[in-house]
Amino acid sequence: MNQTELLHLQFPHLRDLAPFDTAHTATPWLADNECKHTRKLCASLEEAVRKTGLRDGMTISFHHAFREGDRVINQVVATLAQMGFKNLTLASSSLMTCNDPLIEHIRSGVITRIYTSGMRGKLAEAVSHGLMAEPVQIHSHGGRVRLLQDGELAIDVAFLGVPCSDEYGNANGSHGKSCCGSLGYAMVDAQFARNVVLLTETLVPYPNMPASLSQDRVDFVVPVESVGDPAKISVGAARVTSNPRELMIARYAADVIEHAGYFNDGFSIQTGSGAASTACTRFLGEKMARCGVKARFALGGITGSLVELHEKGLIDVLLDTQCFDSQAAASLARNPKHIEISTNVYASPASKAACCDKLDMVILSALEIDVGFNVNVITGSDGVMRGASGGHCDVAAAANLTIVVAPLLRSRIPTVVKRVTTRLTPGESIDVLVTDHGIAVNPARPEVRERLVAAGLNVVDIHALCERAVAIAGEPKPIEFTHRIVGVVRYRDGSVIDVVRQVKE
Amino acid sequence: MNQTELLHLQFPHLRDLAPFDTAHTATPWLADNECKHTRKLCASLEEAVRKTGLRDGMTISFHHAFREGDRVINQVVATLAQMGFKNLTLASSSLMTCNDPLIEHIRSGVITRIYTSGMRGKLAEAVSHGLMAEPVQIHSHGGRVRLLQDGELAIDVAFLGVPCSDEYGNANGSHGKSCCGSLGYAMVDAQFARNVVLLTETLVPYPNMPASLSQDRVDFVVPVESVGDPAKISVGAARVTSNPRELMIARYAADVIEHAGYFNDGFSIQTGSGAASTACTRFLGEKMARCGVKARFALGGITGSLVELHEKGLIDVLLDTQCFDSQAAASLARNPKHIEISTNVYASPASKAACCDKLDMVILSALEIDVGFNVNVITGSDGVMRGASGGHCDVAAAANLTIVVAPLLRSRIPTVVKRVTTRLTPGESIDVLVTDHGIAVNPARPEVRERLVAAGLNVVDIHALCERAVAIAGEPKPIEFTHRIVGVVRYRDGSVIDVVRQVKE
Repeated sequence: MNQTELLHLQFPHLRDLAPFDTAHTATPWLADNECKHTRKLCASLEEAVRKTGLRDGMTISFHHAFREGDRVINQVVATLAQMGFKNLTLASSSLMTCNDPLIEHIRSGVITRIYTSGMRGKLAEAVSHGLMAEPVQIHSHGGRVRLLQDGELAIDVAFLGVPCSDEYGNANGSHGKSCCGSLGYAMVDAQFARNVVLLTETLVPYPNMPASLSQDRVDFVVPVESVGDPAKISVGAARVTSNPRELMIARYAADVIEHAGYFNDGFSIQTGSGAASTACTRFLGEKMARCGVKARFALGGITGSLVELHEKGLIDVLLDTQCFDSQAAASLARNPKHIEISTNVYASPASKAACCDKLDMVILSALEIDVGFNVNVITGSDGVMRGASGGHCDVAAAANLTIVVAPLLRSRIPTVVKRVTTRLTPGESIDVLVTDHGIAVNPARPEVRERLVAAGLNVVDIHALCERAVAIAGEPKPIEFTHRIVGVVRYRDGSVIDVVRQVKE
Repeated sequence: MNQTELLHLQFPHLRDLAPFDTAHTATPWLADNECKHTRKLCASLEEAVRKTGLRDGMTISFHHAFREGDRVINQVVATLAQMGFKNLTLASSSLMTCNDPLIEHIRSGVITRIYTSGMRGKLAEAVSHGLMAEPVQIHSHGGRVRLLQDGELAIDVAFLGVPCSDEYGNANGSHGKSCCGSLGYAMVDAQFARNVVLLTETLVPYPNMPASLSQDRVDFVVPVESVGDPAKISVGAARVTSNPRELMIARYAADVIEHAGYFNDGFSIQTGSGAASTACTRFLGEKMARCGVKARFALGGITGSLVELHEKGLIDVLLDTQCFDSQAAASLARNPKHIEISTNVYASPASKAACCDKLDMVILSALEIDVGFNVNVITGSDGVMRGASGGHCDVAAAANLTIVVAPLLRSRIPTVVKRVTTRLTPGESIDVLVTDHGIAVNPARPEVRERLVAAGLNVVDIHALCERAVAIAGEPKPIEFTHRIVGVVRYRDGSVIDVVRQVKE
């Protein structure tokens, strides 16, 4: 009787334990000196796809760290279309104007379901006009992790573009030719996806550590010519403004930050990606230097202006889930206190702890905000999708003071309205609205209102703002929708906070 | 009809999607400004235990980064005993002489099953003499992660001692009063355990990032007076030798490294924690400097001597799953290319990639090695457990050249034997044995033998070494065992490679 048989005899509950076979039975690649090093490398994307075992009906995922410069999503979906795949669920952390080419792959049935933080451009227009049979699921950045954790979103293959990786899949976004900076979205996909395929611009020597995506989360590595154009990261939402009205709003927002009661040494802040909110960072920096108030950390999408404050010693730590420009990406490689965090660490309501819960203040933008302070960041005044949920409802729910900045009107169309076309973030999460026509405070925060009034700021009632908008531009014509739902807006906890209906032709 | 009802009507397969309730329904702590910050903090270990919902029969885990200086394992188990828990499975990454106090908690039924890499001291003696009804499961460091991944080992509560953490659980081992350095073992427990309790010596301001253990993996944080004595990390296996025979073996081993065919610029190495293997690092450094050969990385348990080579520029990167002395722990805090890795990244056979697969050479120790090159690192010549599996079989299986260093005799007891008392690592994984009486090469590696002979090294047959040992010390008296199994030796892939039987009184 051998040792294992003796064991089974003495301890019948251990009878599933098998006897040793050979050292390489479970790790056959170790018997091959070449294979040990190259087993993850694929000569082509097609080879990697075949090796993952991707089948019709499965779910594929992407990150959007390159924003409008992304070259992975379209490339991979086109390849899958060529390979004949159908009926795939596309789960990108977000979609941009650059993703218009997806329209043809939706028409041809390659993609039949979409999970995303948002969409823009012709794709969003087509979806809003009924392109898809199944409604698009719109989630927040934090909510996406929750969907992954709960299993509603089960990624079969994540295709993650990175500027550099070694042959085992240790990768980061801050070194190499095309740097996107933080891989905060990709980190979550690498954790949850059954198969992870890295597309890398550069193969670098092992070990490429510290790694943002670690070798023990990566199945295959495909060298490709280009994964993205970093020059286009700051196009779109993350632009820097020189618009005088936006600068005015930014200045007011900085005043609100100074006087609302949270501008104390060691405070924390998120400034978001909107034009005015990005500009506000600059004015805030001046106040901080003047008052001798330093921030403990800035959170979220990190911009060059936040990096400047960090390097001046005004912000101690940058917690970065996405770099909004190349200056931020370069800082991530350079500054040890500029720290990359996953979206689970950033803002998931189901995480064991999210950084946003520690936020004092956040500045957010809005396409529309209504008299109940509900915010729309997804549909335009024509009812067509043109934005993204992002971290909006995540940080709004968590921060001590949530400030929305928006012009009263955009192209003579009111931003402050009676009722938002689509509700992304509930009014209960919004504390202050800053417009070019005055500052409105949520009645639930009377103490904040008092402080702003005491500081001499132009505090007005939100109904007055709404009325002024109508007085200037006239009552907007109601948008005509059909009854058909084309988008489901998921709150961060997974619940349905609103739906997007198909617009009439 | 509200929006959600409309959705369910149009898309019946989405009827599980619930309507939005309030912003804080899923995150009630956000409604409480104090609770937001303190919800993980526990005033006592008892409070943390209660909050985890630990029940009789569950599994608790620990890391052993403080080695003989650990103060967490005994403290927690004593607390659980006081609280009346019974029938717990103890899954510590390893156990040491300092864990002798566990004996009473095994006797009283608090601990009834053990998973560990090894055990020493009175605890090991008691177990070898039949203390437990259930055999101890002995795993390798890599194999432990596989057990966690497969679910055989399902940790209910991990109790992880750290020198510093913030109130959200961002922790590391390289800052604070008592530094253990790498938290490579703890990282895995934090990933797999259902509940994670940090015991921390210091509460530091948020955010304590970059973090080795991240806030999204931690449930509770308990400030305690002491988690470990770093002065005792290098006691035991990881000591530095001044023994002339060990130094001689170390010198021979360095010669083998130089001439076996893998000493090329950019090579990689693990030197283990044995006395001779640690000393070998010093001699190797001299050769590297003389020959102008640099290593790309050193792996595994990192010692002060490896840190010296790193700081001299002779080793590019240190990949550290455990610091073997305080010099290594200090380096981890200081050197950006001294990188902390989890045991999953280090050596798991079930990981998507393990660093050990990239190893050129490894130096390992042995309590016994037999003429088939099988190695015993767990039982002494009296059949009593006094060692640990560690990463032995993991790296032996993976490295291109596996070198075992051992004296021919220890206290007049042969180390080279006909058949090992207990087999931990199969002979097929061992390439070279270096003793103070000559160097034996596995017949499976004739090319290595040729190179060493050509270099003029004293190459002998392993049978000759075995015979010489008997000639010097006499034929050892066979150990008398009962039939009862007290330990199961699991190979890295989970299979049973041997068992440990109870020694006769």
